[in-house]
Amino acid sequence: MHAAFFSRTGDPSVIEWVEMPDPVPGPGQVRVRTEAVAVNAVDTLVRSGRWSTPLAFPVAVGRDLVGVVDQIGPGVGGLREGDRVWTSSAGYAGRPGATAELVVVDRDRLYPVPDAADPVAFVASLHPATTAVAALHLSARVQPGETLVVVGANGAVGAALVQEGVASGADVVAVVRDARCVATLEEWGAEVVVADAGSAAEAVAERRPDGIHVFIDTTGRADTASAVRRLAPRGRVIVLAGRTSAEIDLWSLQVRELRVVGFILSALDASELREVAEQVNARWAEGRPLLAQVGGVLGFADAADAHRRMETGDLPRTADGFVGRLVLVPSPPSSAAPSTTR
Amino acid sequence: MHAAFFSRTGDPSVIEWVEMPDPVPGPGQVRVRTEAVAVNAVDTLVRSGRWSTPLAFPVAVGRDLVGVVDQIGPGVGGLREGDRVWTSSAGYAGRPGATAELVVVDRDRLYPVPDAADPVAFVASLHPATTAVAALHLSARVQPGETLVVVGANGAVGAALVQEGVASGADVVAVVRDARCVATLEEWGAEVVVADAGSAAEAVAERRPDGIHVFIDTTGRADTASAVRRLAPRGRVIVLAGRTSAEIDLWSLQVRELRVVGFILSALDASELREVAEQVNARWAEGRPLLAQVGGVLGFADAADAHRRMETGDLPRTADGFVGRLVLVPSPPSSAAPSTTR
Repeated sequence: MHAAFFSRTGDPSVIEWVEMPDPVPGPGQVRVRTEAVAVNAVDTLVRSGRWSTPLAFPVAVGRDLVGVVDQIGPGVGGLREGDRVWTSSAGYAGRPGATAELVVVDRDRLYPVPDAADPVAFVASLHPATTAVAALHLSARVQPGETLVVVGANGAVGAALVQEGVASGADVVAVVRDARCVATLEEWGAEVVVADAGSAAEAVAERRPDGIHVFIDTTGRADTASAVRRLAPRGRVIVLAGRTSAEIDLWSLQVRELRVVGFILSALDASELREVAEQVNARWAEGRPLLAQVGGVLGFADAADAHRRMETGDLPRTADGFVGRLVLVPSPPSSAAPSTTR
Repeated sequence: MHAAFFSRTGDPSVIEWVEMPDPVPGPGQVRVRTEAVAVNAVDTLVRSGRWSTPLAFPVAVGRDLVGVVDQIGPGVGGLREGDRVWTSSAGYAGRPGATAELVVVDRDRLYPVPDAADPVAFVASLHPATTAVAALHLSARVQPGETLVVVGANGAVGAALVQEGVASGADVVAVVRDARCVATLEEWGAEVVVADAGSAAEAVAERRPDGIHVFIDTTGRADTASAVRRLAPRGRVIVLAGRTSAEIDLWSLQVRELRVVGFILSALDASELREVAEQVNARWAEGRPLLAQVGGVLGFADAADAHRRMETGDLPRTADGFVGRLVLVPSPPSSAAPSTTR
C-alpha cells in the first residue's frame, strides 16, 4: 500500500509518497481502506513539530479519515467488512496517520458514517464539527439561551461553532471581518457583527450589554483581556487559538465567577472523543449536520503540496467568503485544478 | 428584639446596636432565635460596600448563624420549633442579616446542626468549611490522587481546604509562612512547604515536578502566572482572593487544557448551597468535621468592634500559628477578654 509518510519533523518536504507493507490489525484494532482524508492546520503543527506529540516514525500525516472496514483484528465486535467508518484521532500520540491507503485504527476510535454522508464532504466536516461539539459541550458547557460569541465565523471551526451553537439553543453572535459571509451566517440563525478580531468583544458588548456567556476566538487575534471584561457572571472564555498572553483581571474573575478555559481537541481521551462523535452523528440523524465548505480535492500523493498551501494560507474561498477545506483522496481527481463545491 | 444593624455602607461605625420590631416569617420562611454568629472578612466587604450586593436597609451584619427554630411561616415543612439549624447565606442579596436576636431565613437556606456540634465552634467553621467544599468540589472538581496546593493554610479557609482536600483523597501540599503550623498540618495529612505566597508555586514545583492539579491561594499574594506555569495538564487555578491582575500564557493554557477559575461563595444559588451544606454535615457524620479555630467570643453589641479587628488584622493566633476566628453571641461572655479555644 502507499502512504504519505514522514520520518522526521520539518517543513512540508519531509512528506514522502512511498510504498509500505500492508499494516496488520492487532487485538482490538481494525484495518480501514481509506476513502478520504482531511487536511487540518493541526496536521501541519504535528508534521513541523510545533505541537509536540509522540510519533512512531515513519508515520502518515493526517488525523481525520473516512473509509471502509477492510480487515478486523482479534476481539473486535460490532463491525463487519465493508462498513463505512470514521475516526478523528489518527496520526498523533503514537497512532498511525490517516493519509495511507490502509490504516490500522483502534476499534474504540471508529464510529459509523451516517448513510446520507458523502465521504469527501463528511471528512471535511470532521475536525471543525468535533472541535465545535467538544469546545461547546465538554469545555464551555453552553446552555440554551446563553450568548455565545464566535470570532472568525467564516473559518471552518468558526462556522461549525455557529451551527452547533444555534442547534444547542444558544444566542449566537458571529464576528467576521468579511461582510460577504453575513447572509449565510444569518441564514444559519446567528446575529452577525462585522469587526476585526481585536475589537470583537467591544463590538459585541454594544449589542449585548448584559454580557457574554461564552466567548470563543478561532483566529488567535482577539483581545482575551477585553473578552473577560465583557463576560456575564459565570461567563467563560474558551482559548483554542493563538500564542499570545493576556493580562487578566483576577478580581473580576473572582467576584463574577468567570473562567478562562484552555481547549485542545488533541487532549481528549477515547471516551470523550466517542461522546463527541455520537453528538456529531446525532446532528446528521436530526437532519441538521454540521457542514464545512470543501475548497479542493487533491490526491494522497499531493499531501506535501496541501500542507504548503495550508501553511501559507493559500486556501480557496467560497463566493460568500468562507474558507474552503482541502481533502485528499487515494486517487487524485481527473482535473489537477482544485474544485470548489458547497 | 435587638440587632447589629447598619443603614448605609461605610466604616465599622455605621453598625448600631438597636431595638427593632420582631420580624415575622412569610410563606416559605422560618424565624430563628440566634445562638451564635461568625464574623467573616466578607461581612466587612458587604458593610463597607467594597463588595457590591443588594441590601434592604436597615440590615444586620453577618451571614453565618446557628440558632433554634422560633416560629414557622406558612407552607414550611420538615422543621419543628426548637430544632437547631444553620444558614450561611444571610445578610446579602437582599436577605436579612445574621447578627440579630431573631432572624427570618428562607426554609431552603436552613440545614440541621449536627447533634455533636457546639454552636460557637460550629458557626466558626461554617464560612471556611462551605468555601472549601464549594471551591474544591463545585469549582475545582478535585479528584482523588490529584495534587492540591493550598497557599495560606494557616488561615481559616486554608485550614478547611487542607482538611477537605485530605478527606477527599487529594495529595495536599500546604504552603505557610509560619513554621509553627507544620506539625498540625502534617497531623491532618498534608505535606508542608514553608514559603512566601509569592514563591509558593515555584517552591512546590521542586516537590511535585509532574505538576499541580489544583492551586488555591487564600492570601491574595500568590503569583498566579507562575501557578499556571506549574500546573499539570488539565490543572486548575482557583482564584478566590486578591485584587491583582496576572499575565497568563494562553498557548500553555490551550495546549495543556488549563483553567483559571474565579470562585466566590456568594455566587452560589440556594440549590448549590444546599449541596455544599449536605457535604459539610456529612463530614460531621463521618467523624471528620471541618473545624476552624475560635479566637474569641464577643457579644452581638460588640459587632462594630469585631469588624474593626477583622479589618486591621487584629485577630488572635493559636499557639501553633493558626488564625483564630471571632464569634458573636447574643449575650457577651462574662469576661471581656477574648477566650482562645481549640
